[in-house]
Amino acid sequence: MLARMTFAQQRLAEGFLFTDLYQLTMAQLYFRTGLAEKRAQFDHFFRDLPNYGDHRAGYCVNAGLGWLLDWMKEARVQEADIEALKSMRGRTGERLFGDDFLAWLKRHGTFECLTLRAIPEGRVVHPGVPLTVVEGPLIMAQILETALLAQLNYQTLIATKAARVKESARGGLVLEFGVRRAHDRGANAGTRAALIGGADFTSNAGISHVLGFPPKGTHAHSMVQAFVALGLGELAAFRAYAETYPDECVLLVDTIDTLHSGIPNAITVFEELRRKGHEPVGVRLDSGDLAYLSIQAAKLLNEAGFPDVAIVLSSNLDELVIWQILTQISEEAPAYGLDPEAIIRRLVYGVGTRLITSEGDTALGGVYKLVSLHDGERWQPAIKLSDSRDKVLNPGDKGAWRLYDARGNATADLITLADETPKPPQGDERLLLHHPSDPSRRRTLRAGEVSRVEPLLLPVLEEGRLVRELPDIPAMRELRTRDIEALNSGVRRLVNPHIYHVSLSEPLWTLKQELIASLSENGR
Amino acid sequence: MLARMTFAQQRLAEGFLFTDLYQLTMAQLYFRTGLAEKRAQFDHFFRDLPNYGDHRAGYCVNAGLGWLLDWMKEARVQEADIEALKSMRGRTGERLFGDDFLAWLKRHGTFECLTLRAIPEGRVVHPGVPLTVVEGPLIMAQILETALLAQLNYQTLIATKAARVKESARGGLVLEFGVRRAHDRGANAGTRAALIGGADFTSNAGISHVLGFPPKGTHAHSMVQAFVALGLGELAAFRAYAETYPDECVLLVDTIDTLHSGIPNAITVFEELRRKGHEPVGVRLDSGDLAYLSIQAAKLLNEAGFPDVAIVLSSNLDELVIWQILTQISEEAPAYGLDPEAIIRRLVYGVGTRLITSEGDTALGGVYKLVSLHDGERWQPAIKLSDSRDKVLNPGDKGAWRLYDARGNATADLITLADETPKPPQGDERLLLHHPSDPSRRRTLRAGEVSRVEPLLLPVLEEGRLVRELPDIPAMRELRTRDIEALNSGVRRLVNPHIYHVSLSEPLWTLKQELIASLSENGR
Repeated sequence: MLARMTFAQQRLAEGFLFTDLYQLTMAQLYFRTGLAEKRAQFDHFFRDLPNYGDHRAGYCVNAGLGWLLDWMKEARVQEADIEALKSMRGRTGERLFGDDFLAWLKRHGTFECLTLRAIPEGRVVHPGVPLTVVEGPLIMAQILETALLAQLNYQTLIATKAARVKESARGGLVLEFGVRRAHDRGANAGTRAALIGGADFTSNAGISHVLGFPPKGTHAHSMVQAFVALGLGELAAFRAYAETYPDECVLLVDTIDTLHSGIPNAITVFEELRRKGHEPVGVRLDSGDLAYLSIQAAKLLNEAGFPDVAIVLSSNLDELVIWQILTQISEEAPAYGLDPEAIIRRLVYGVGTRLITSEGDTALGGVYKLVSLHDGERWQPAIKLSDSRDKVLNPGDKGAWRLYDARGNATADLITLADETPKPPQGDERLLLHHPSDPSRRRTLRAGEVSRVEPLLLPVLEEGRLVRELPDIPAMRELRTRDIEALNSGVRRLVNPHIYHVSLSEPLWTLKQELIASLSENGR
Repeated sequence: MLARMTFAQQRLAEGFLFTDLYQLTMAQLYFRTGLAEKRAQFDHFFRDLPNYGDHRAGYCVNAGLGWLLDWMKEARVQEADIEALKSMRGRTGERLFGDDFLAWLKRHGTFECLTLRAIPEGRVVHPGVPLTVVEGPLIMAQILETALLAQLNYQTLIATKAARVKESARGGLVLEFGVRRAHDRGANAGTRAALIGGADFTSNAGISHVLGFPPKGTHAHSMVQAFVALGLGELAAFRAYAETYPDECVLLVDTIDTLHSGIPNAITVFEELRRKGHEPVGVRLDSGDLAYLSIQAAKLLNEAGFPDVAIVLSSNLDELVIWQILTQISEEAPAYGLDPEAIIRRLVYGVGTRLITSEGDTALGGVYKLVSLHDGERWQPAIKLSDSRDKVLNPGDKGAWRLYDARGNATADLITLADETPKPPQGDERLLLHHPSDPSRRRTLRAGEVSRVEPLLLPVLEEGRLVRELPDIPAMRELRTRDIEALNSGVRRLVNPHIYHVSLSEPLWTLKQELIASLSENGR
C-alpha cells in the first residue's frame, strides 16, 4: 500500500505542528500550573559565526523574517491539529494531552497575541545580539521557538554565504543555481535568502517569479547529448538554441571538449547570429580548470570578434574558489597577451550546491531563549548558567545598538537594558563597553570616537498587528550593501576575518553578574 | 508594503515550476525542433559517497521516492504556471515562451506520461548505480530533473547519515531532534529520511504524526528558567513536570548544574513519583562532557535505586561523537565501580543539527543524465565525455544487480545492458566484472563465488500508473537492516571504510568504449 501524503497532511506538517513536541508538553504544563498567560520575553540570537572549516564569516546577513511573519499568520491551530494532539498517547496508553488543555489551545492557539521587535532583513548582524525579540503569553511565545528557528537560522545562513560569494565576485553577476542540491522544499527559502544576501538572480523558476525576479537559465548538457545521440552533433544543438533564443544565446560548451569543440562551434553560431542582426550573450564553462579555460575562451572569443560575450562559470563554486580563479586569471592572463581585468569584467558566476547548503557550515546555531518573565507585578529577568562562561545568557528586556566611529564605520554593537538610550559621548562623557563574558576586557569610548548610535531592533508586531512596513528585497539589498560598506575591511575578509566587537552596557553587565551569583546560590 | 507570499504563490513555487528555468527553455527548444515527444531515458545516480571530512560513508541508504511520486502526481501544470511563463521576458523585452509551446505544455504538462524503475527506499545503494531510471517523452522526462534531484538527493543524504548514527549507537534508541536547524521546510523530508535510515522516533510533531510515529519530547531549559525566574526553583519545575506527566517523566538536568543540582533534584522527584506508584523514565544531559556526566549520573541514579532510568544524551551528537562517548564510558566506568555495558544499555541519543543537515557533507551530488534517446527507429545510447574519465556516463538502457558471495554477503553491484540477466556462474562459466573506468581493473567470478544475483531496479510507474506497492517505513527499515547486515564489516566502518565494488558487465563496457571513441571523432 502506498501511504501517500495528502495535501491536508502536508498542511498539518507545515502548520502549527511544525514544531518540536516538547513545546506542546511544556505548554500543557504551563496551562496546568497557571503560567499559560504570564507574559514572557524570548531573545533569538546566534552565538557563533559560520565557520566553513578553512575559512569563516566575519559577519552575518539577517534574513527570514518576512516569511516567518507569513507563517505566524497562517499557522493558527486547526481542528486537524487538535485531533492529532488528541490521538497522541504516552507509554501507559493514556492520552498525552487533556481535553482541558486542548480546549484552551483551540481558543488561544494563534501567534496573533505576540509582540515582536526585530533587526530588519538584509542588515549585517553579529553574534550575541538579539535579532528578534518575542513577547507575549508564555505558551504561545514558547511554541513559536521551533518554527522561528527553522526559518530564521536557515535564511540567515544562506544570506551570509551569498554575501561572501558576492564579495569574492568583485561585483560580478552572481546566479543562484542550487535548487537540485538543496534540502528539499527548503530550496525556496534558500533562494530567497540568496537573493537578499548577494545573488542577483536565480535559476529556481517558481519562487523567482513569485519574488518578482526573472529566473535565469539556458540549457544543460543533455540538450547537446540529445542532438549527438540523434547523429546531429553539437553544432546542430547550438544552432537550434540560437534559432529558438536569438537574443538570449548562452551556450554550454563543455559537453564534448571545451576548447576544441564547444568554443569553436559557439563562435560559428555567434557569427551566424550576428549576420542575422543578433548579438550573442555568452558561453558557459561547467567543468575543468575554470581559470585556464576562461583565459583560453576569452582569447578565442576575442580573436573571433566577440570581446563582450559573457563567460559564465559554474561547477562547485564558492567564495574561495572564485577568489582563487580570479587570482589565477590575474596572474596568468598576461602570458597570453590578455588584460586580466577585461576577462574578469565579463565573468558571471553560477553558484549552486555550496551556496544553497552553506557548504562547510550547514546550520546557523541560532537559539531562542527565555530572558524575562512577568510575575504579575514586574518583569523578572531569566538566565541560564552553562559550563561555558561564553554561553551564559544575557538576561532581561534589552535594547541593541550599533556604534559608528568618527569615519562612519561600524565599530561595535552594544547590548543594553531596555531603558537605556546610549548616545555619542560629549565633553567628558564616557561610554563603557563590557566584553559579554570576560570581566577583564572593557573598552572606553570618549567624545569624538562615536559619531552615531543607531537602534537595531525595530517594532514589527504589536499583539500580532504589523506596525511597520517591511523592506522589499531591493531595499534589503540596499541595507546589506550599506552595512557591509560600513564594516572595517578586516571584518569583511573571507579568511580569518577580524572580530567585530559586541559589548554589554554597564547596567546589563551588572544585572548579569548579580543573576549569576544569585542563581548559583539559590537557583536549586 | 509587506509583500506576503500567498498560499497560491507557495503552491506555484512548490509545484510544476519548482525547477530550474533551463528545463523549460530546453523544453521549448525540443518542442520547436520536433523532439518534444521523442522517447528519452534518464538515469539518476550519485558519483561519490558522502565525505564528512574526517570520516566518510561506505554506502548510502536510498530514500525519497515515495514523496517524489506524490509530487509528480500533484505537480501537473496549472493555469497559474502558464501565466507565470507567459510573463517571462528576455533581454529585448520579448516573451521568452511562445503561445505555441505554452499551448502544448498546457495539454501535456504532466508527469503521468513517465515510466519509472527504481531501487526501493531503505535499500543500501552505491555510487554509479542507477537508483532511478525515468523513461518517457523527452520534454517531460527532462523537466522532472530538478525536482527529482532536490527530493531524492536530500532524503538519501539524511537516511545515510541516520544509518551511521544508528550503527554508532550500537542499537540504542535514536531520536531525531533537528527541525530547528534544518533548512526551513526541508525539515519534514529530513525527518522522514531519518526515520527510514536509522532514527527510531522524532521530535518533529506534525510530520511524525502524519507518518504514523508518536513524536517524542519532554521539556526545555526554558521551563526550568521560568520556574527559577518566578523564585520557585528547579525542584519545583521538576515536580510540576512529574505531576503533569507522571508516566513520561524525563527531566532535563543541566539548566543550573548537572551533578550538584539537576540530578539530585531529579532523584528527589523520582522518589516522590515512585511513592505514588509511577516509574520515572529518564534524565537528559544536554551540555558538558557527556561521557563523564553519563557515568556520574548513572552512579547517582544507581545509588538512589534507579538503575533502569534512561540517560538521554543530546548536544551536537553525530556518529563520531557517539562512538567517542561510548569508548570513553567503556574505558572510564570501571574506575567508578560501574559496568560500562550497563550504562551504555540505558543511553538514548537525541541527534539534531548534525543529522538533519548531514554535517560535514551537506549535499549528495546526485545527477540525472540522458542515457538513451529513441530516434523513431531504435534507442540511441547517449553519452557525455568529461575531463575526468571517472565521470564519463554509463550509456544506454541498463539493468542493475547485486551479487552475493558464498557466505551471502553482498560482494559487488553489477551494471549491465538492459537485455542481460546475469546469473551465478555454474561449471566453467565466468562472470567478468569491469571497473567502470579503468580498463586494467577487472575481476572474474567463478562457480561457487556467487550465491545469488538480485535485481535492484524494480518497475514503479508505467506511464504514470503505479505498478507496485511501495514499502511503508517499517518495511523500508527492514530492507535497510538486512542490506547493512549483508555488507562486509569493512564497508560498514564509520571511518575510512573499505570500498564496495561497482562494476560494469562486458557488453556495457564495450558499448561505452565504442561510444567514447565515436564521440571523440564525430561528436562535434
